[in-house]
Amino acid sequence: MNLPATIRESSVLDRSRVLAESLFTDLFTCTRDDPGVTRECYAAGEDTALKLLRSTAEASGLVCSTDRASNLIISLPTDDFSRPALILGSHADSVPHGGNFDGGAGLIAALLCMLRLNEDGEPQAGAVRLLALRGEESAYYGRANIGSRALFGLLTSNDLNARRQGTGRTLREALAATGADVNAIERGIHLLPIGFGTAYLELHIEQGPVMVARDLPTAIVTGIRGNLRHRRIVCRGEAGHSGTVPRWLRRDAVFAVSDLLMRLDEHWTRLLERGNDLVITAGVCGTDREQNAMSRIPGEVYFSFEIRSQSCDTLEGFYELFRSECRAVAAQRRVIFEFDERVYAEPARMDESMITKLQNLSKKLGMTTEVLPSGAGHDAAIFANAGIPSGMIFVRNQNGSHNPNEDMTIEDLLEGANLMYEFARRELYPVADK
Amino acid sequence: MNLPATIRESSVLDRSRVLAESLFTDLFTCTRDDPGVTRECYAAGEDTALKLLRSTAEASGLVCSTDRASNLIISLPTDDFSRPALILGSHADSVPHGGNFDGGAGLIAALLCMLRLNEDGEPQAGAVRLLALRGEESAYYGRANIGSRALFGLLTSNDLNARRQGTGRTLREALAATGADVNAIERGIHLLPIGFGTAYLELHIEQGPVMVARDLPTAIVTGIRGNLRHRRIVCRGEAGHSGTVPRWLRRDAVFAVSDLLMRLDEHWTRLLERGNDLVITAGVCGTDREQNAMSRIPGEVYFSFEIRSQSCDTLEGFYELFRSECRAVAAQRRVIFEFDERVYAEPARMDESMITKLQNLSKKLGMTTEVLPSGAGHDAAIFANAGIPSGMIFVRNQNGSHNPNEDMTIEDLLEGANLMYEFARRELYPVADK
Repeated sequence: MNLPATIRESSVLDRSRVLAESLFTDLFTCTRDDPGVTRECYAAGEDTALKLLRSTAEASGLVCSTDRASNLIISLPTDDFSRPALILGSHADSVPHGGNFDGGAGLIAALLCMLRLNEDGEPQAGAVRLLALRGEESAYYGRANIGSRALFGLLTSNDLNARRQGTGRTLREALAATGADVNAIERGIHLLPIGFGTAYLELHIEQGPVMVARDLPTAIVTGIRGNLRHRRIVCRGEAGHSGTVPRWLRRDAVFAVSDLLMRLDEHWTRLLERGNDLVITAGVCGTDREQNAMSRIPGEVYFSFEIRSQSCDTLEGFYELFRSECRAVAAQRRVIFEFDERVYAEPARMDESMITKLQNLSKKLGMTTEVLPSGAGHDAAIFANAGIPSGMIFVRNQNGSHNPNEDMTIEDLLEGANLMYEFARRELYPVADK
Repeated sequence: MNLPATIRESSVLDRSRVLAESLFTDLFTCTRDDPGVTRECYAAGEDTALKLLRSTAEASGLVCSTDRASNLIISLPTDDFSRPALILGSHADSVPHGGNFDGGAGLIAALLCMLRLNEDGEPQAGAVRLLALRGEESAYYGRANIGSRALFGLLTSNDLNARRQGTGRTLREALAATGADVNAIERGIHLLPIGFGTAYLELHIEQGPVMVARDLPTAIVTGIRGNLRHRRIVCRGEAGHSGTVPRWLRRDAVFAVSDLLMRLDEHWTRLLERGNDLVITAGVCGTDREQNAMSRIPGEVYFSFEIRSQSCDTLEGFYELFRSECRAVAAQRRVIFEFDERVYAEPARMDESMITKLQNLSKKLGMTTEVLPSGAGHDAAIFANAGIPSGMIFVRNQNGSHNPNEDMTIEDLLEGANLMYEFARRELYPVADK
């Protein structure tokens, strides 16, 4: 510690790089399931990832425990849990045949951060804890953020009765097998003690292409998009011989849905120009396979429709536009739209003060960063909507996520982890830093 | 024959009505296959229909024979086949579970006509023959107008090798079982003797909704639409997380295809305003079932595309527009369009002089009729493109065709059959009518 600061820093980064590389290799190897990795929640893959994290943390002098929902807590040896903590969180599970970095990057960054903070000695203010959450992906039981929802009493009996595709095992059984307090979870008890955390900070790879396109190694998340969805809308027109029905007598469902989507595309463009946060998607779309034919006017088209935004107002506003354009197209093209249940997931705002602090800090550190909304859901949304000020750091990643081709560089990760560390240090040693 | 003309006429129509009703009932009963009727070509259903026609004709003093492609010829007893004939044609087959009138109406109308002409005595000019064609529907062997194509040497070995869905029986085997000269057919020999027919006239139900919408019991066909088709075009964009990819980075295949169809819809409207004959259809359309998801930007959409028009120029012109808009959408939305083989079916013009004669005649008879293009294909197109002047009379029909709900009234049929008879009479007794 007598070395000049620059050399000390460089040696810390070198050590972090070596540790990160080795951890990513180990994490990949121990959960490998070609192609990619499989870390099934409340099952072997997730257990293995958590075990690796725990043994690495303990070997470096950190302390490990488990919360009542079987999430792993890593704390400093000086932490007696009497003071509320800054929570550094991420998730240990992955989708089947997913990539190594979705969740893994956040855990390894947080662990690097904890190790450096441990070297800095006992915090002067508050505490810091790593929360390695389970069950963030919806791939197994249909419900996302199981581990964080359980902490806030947000899982329903329906959620617990959900059966895993393939095996038929219920989430309840899977949770119980890890030693989680299923009874308390089902009763909706708040398992995270009041005052456990003062803030939540999560590092995650970006799951979209924006940071690559804009050449940003890191970004600070402004909010997590909510969504309004219909899983299946049916547009009903009238089938008929493609040669014999003139345009004025047609009730063509494919043209009607195309018309609808182009009207919505127009509104979307306008709203983006005015600065709204919005994406819309019709991911599933098709004519009825039993009925369709090249020479038959399509009488029926089914499609899904999803609106995502950080703003409740934009979600609801665009939904109104959507229904209004459905009515207009129905009238003009003489079709009918039939809607299934509308499903809503609330957006979450990241904490303004944390965003500002992270922005100022990254400037101070000479980092190239920008603010960005998160299109995908994250546990941070659960913490934020539960009233705990939350923030997220995104790290650049190629090829999207939920696939084996996720591609993040260790350099980008180290930059993000360093921002997390510097943020935590200023929270824990507020006087020293002034 | 000493009765006043009006009374004679009315008695003829009464007899025609009774015969028509009885024939439609018998035809339905003997080929019934709930729901609807099945008259499979070169198989039991079509054979049964032809047998009914033959026995009715012979019982009334008409003469029956079979051509080398197993089509049924019904002629007047005075016809020694030395003079070329006006051919009254239609087809005996139906699609599986089809309606009673598609084909059946034309045969029964032509038979009523032949019976009246037989009562009128030996023609003064030319001859008249009923040609009951086989295999008009493409439902069984993929190829339409088999019976008429065979007569003009237009079937290929590929056509003959086509296997019936389900049984695997080849068209060659099916044809041979009826006694057709498969060898001559395969060698492309013109089986219809030169001079057999001077003209071809076919009555058919309309297979679209125009005549019902316009309240026309009968119509005179101006031409039979040809078509340009792609069975499967694939639009390739890029899949991605629906929440994380902003509009400017999307390559959404569903939006791209919707954009394309709306551009084409715009051109279509413009061309109709300018009086072009045109219909366009994307009958089959969908996202990849293995890949699509509500939260995934659709990276791939397949669709069929069909252009129909009576005009070769309109077909080719619109096809150019179509390819040009594909290029524009590909550039703007950063997708790729991949095309399978382009398939072309030539349009056919009905004979101008026959159209004019039928129009003048219908006016004279006080009929409400109009000219109309035929969107569906008919054997008349084969005759017209083989150089035989051809005409068609359409009869109003509810609920489209190729389904059990076809609905034609006997009154409308009798009106069409009467127009056919009056036309034939003027051709066969040109002097008497002057």
